[in-house]
Amino acid sequence: MPTDPARLTADLVRCASVTPEEGGALQLLQAMLETAGFACTRVDRNGTPNLFGRWGARGAAKSFGFNGHTDVVPVGDAAAWTHPPFSAHAEDGWLYGRGATDMKSGVAAFVAAAIDHVTDTPPDGAILIAITGDEEGPGQDGTIAILDWMATAGERMDLCIVGEPTSVETIGDMVKIGRRGSMTARFEVIGKQGHSAYLHKALNPMPAVALLAHRLSTHVLDEGTDHFDPSTLSVTTIDTGNPASNVIPARTRMTVNLRFNDLHTGASLTDWLRAEADRVAAETGTRIEMTAQVSGEAFLTPPGALSDLVTRAIGQETNQSPVLSTTGGTSDARFVKDHCPVVEFGLVGHRMHEVDERVWLQDIHDLKRIYARMLRAYFDQDG
Amino acid sequence: MPTDPARLTADLVRCASVTPEEGGALQLLQAMLETAGFACTRVDRNGTPNLFGRWGARGAAKSFGFNGHTDVVPVGDAAAWTHPPFSAHAEDGWLYGRGATDMKSGVAAFVAAAIDHVTDTPPDGAILIAITGDEEGPGQDGTIAILDWMATAGERMDLCIVGEPTSVETIGDMVKIGRRGSMTARFEVIGKQGHSAYLHKALNPMPAVALLAHRLSTHVLDEGTDHFDPSTLSVTTIDTGNPASNVIPARTRMTVNLRFNDLHTGASLTDWLRAEADRVAAETGTRIEMTAQVSGEAFLTPPGALSDLVTRAIGQETNQSPVLSTTGGTSDARFVKDHCPVVEFGLVGHRMHEVDERVWLQDIHDLKRIYARMLRAYFDQDG
Repeated sequence: MPTDPARLTADLVRCASVTPEEGGALQLLQAMLETAGFACTRVDRNGTPNLFGRWGARGAAKSFGFNGHTDVVPVGDAAAWTHPPFSAHAEDGWLYGRGATDMKSGVAAFVAAAIDHVTDTPPDGAILIAITGDEEGPGQDGTIAILDWMATAGERMDLCIVGEPTSVETIGDMVKIGRRGSMTARFEVIGKQGHSAYLHKALNPMPAVALLAHRLSTHVLDEGTDHFDPSTLSVTTIDTGNPASNVIPARTRMTVNLRFNDLHTGASLTDWLRAEADRVAAETGTRIEMTAQVSGEAFLTPPGALSDLVTRAIGQETNQSPVLSTTGGTSDARFVKDHCPVVEFGLVGHRMHEVDERVWLQDIHDLKRIYARMLRAYFDQDG
Repeated sequence: MPTDPARLTADLVRCASVTPEEGGALQLLQAMLETAGFACTRVDRNGTPNLFGRWGARGAAKSFGFNGHTDVVPVGDAAAWTHPPFSAHAEDGWLYGRGATDMKSGVAAFVAAAIDHVTDTPPDGAILIAITGDEEGPGQDGTIAILDWMATAGERMDLCIVGEPTSVETIGDMVKIGRRGSMTARFEVIGKQGHSAYLHKALNPMPAVALLAHRLSTHVLDEGTDHFDPSTLSVTTIDTGNPASNVIPARTRMTVNLRFNDLHTGASLTDWLRAEADRVAAETGTRIEMTAQVSGEAFLTPPGALSDLVTRAIGQETNQSPVLSTTGGTSDARFVKDHCPVVEFGLVGHRMHEVDERVWLQDIHDLKRIYARMLRAYFDQDG
């Protein structure tokens, strides 16, 4: 009997796996995978739960990988939900719950597709499944830990599908073949406190922070590339905390967030930001301190064999031709790309991270079928 | 026996008259003035204590006014004071205490000078004394209330000396013949919240506030005048309070403080600020709300009879030729100037508003003598 991915999604939603809680989700998946013949290993690191499973031989000639996560973001205002967020309430074709789209349905669809595939049409090769319990949190011991462990254990994927929700309006309309990089820089502009009536005794940091914010905001980083939108910079906050209008503050703080394409690296942007800060400091006589944190570099899996495989499977099941995109935030694909070619494809993200997150039940079945098509095509088992 | 202004200062310092507390200070002065023949009236309004006294006839041909205040700012960290702030401790020629320079010594000096003058050499005219208990606070029921009451009661000064500390290094080196105006404007820039990775769905208010802050900070309001420094504008705070670097904030706030000369008015600057805000709003698509509060208009008592009277008295007693200045913060002279010509002159402001505020005792005696010279000269009683 085929594995029901909608029922599996509901079972996973009932596991309250808010990062970093495992919530029983990985245990449930491990039991199912082992029953189907997968060799499973828990690859926990520093308290973060992670699950690795392989069907077929280690070092097989062909090896197809799936990546996903079972952790979810907090429910927010629980009272605002129409149905309890871990009740997996189904109504009018929808399944409600935290993680319903991000991304317990995606995990359920590829696990169901993989189990049915190895059961019904055992391939000549291996299917690897890597599922972490921390993609929504700091993520330093999630997919990274699984990949580290795989390298040590001699486990290898030839390609990987990350099952994050990538579709926009209808399932199959968008695939992600890369992601912009992301970084955050924090500035502190330091002047000298004083009285608004005696400016010559003070050095106001506010004109300096305004000048720096203005220059950074109006700078054009690039015009975009064939596969990427233009890079962006957002000043996200300036905070001074000076309640007295007759006092010149001693210091003020600013944070900027950048989303950048593969014309830049975190290091090149850090150098540029520091040079701009130094220039403003020199022009204004202030001192400007800066720290930068790069959370992910830009990457691209150029259109080719893998994206063709995904596009064809989507076309066969949905008659859609997906856009190959690099938009949006970050995902664990930014770690996987150092291991093998990676493409992200999954459901429409209805109310992802919001109250009343929900998934269209039919989409889960469609997604399972698309993943199954990819497996058959990859292993040359198509009718 | 001449009235001792140093002893009177000490008596006043012992009255704990932190705004809005009367603390016994006005009662003490009223008793002394009445003993010397002044007709006194308490002109309290909305709980603010105020004292008015007149020697001589209402409507006399010549009428000399003094203005001052007995309220003081809070002591701050009481434990940090070398001597208790209301103990009026005298040591090595200094008198310590909150209000020692700002401005119980000034009040003591002009009250002592006035009492001795009417006692020893009764003039052909009137001497008016207006002392408020709220100059350091909101001040809406202080000197304003006394002037309102005077207008109703038919009381009139031909000129007025405000006894605020105006000297810089030594007593007599600076007189104030006007003050810059002061105003504060508060802006709120409103955009649309969103995610840093999906800028097209958001409208970031930060570039708009940076542009507005930059334009206002770099605008030259004027080059100054013969009697005034150039007008200044200080951005004193920008606050957003957005802790999440992946979130575009919905709104941010900014405060600016202006000190302006008589080329401007609060109304003309309010119009200009609103126009600049509207321009930035139009250019950025944001909405910008603004409120402005004018705490005082610029004013000038042009050099002439009154400043000559003051300058001559200072020269006779100290051999100094004071600078006629319009620098510094605001004082109640900004209210008196609508009533009659006004000049400010007083002591050096040692540690004014700070811990260990103190006055050089000899300066109090010198100040009394200078005020006495002014009275004799005004009433043509010199030598």
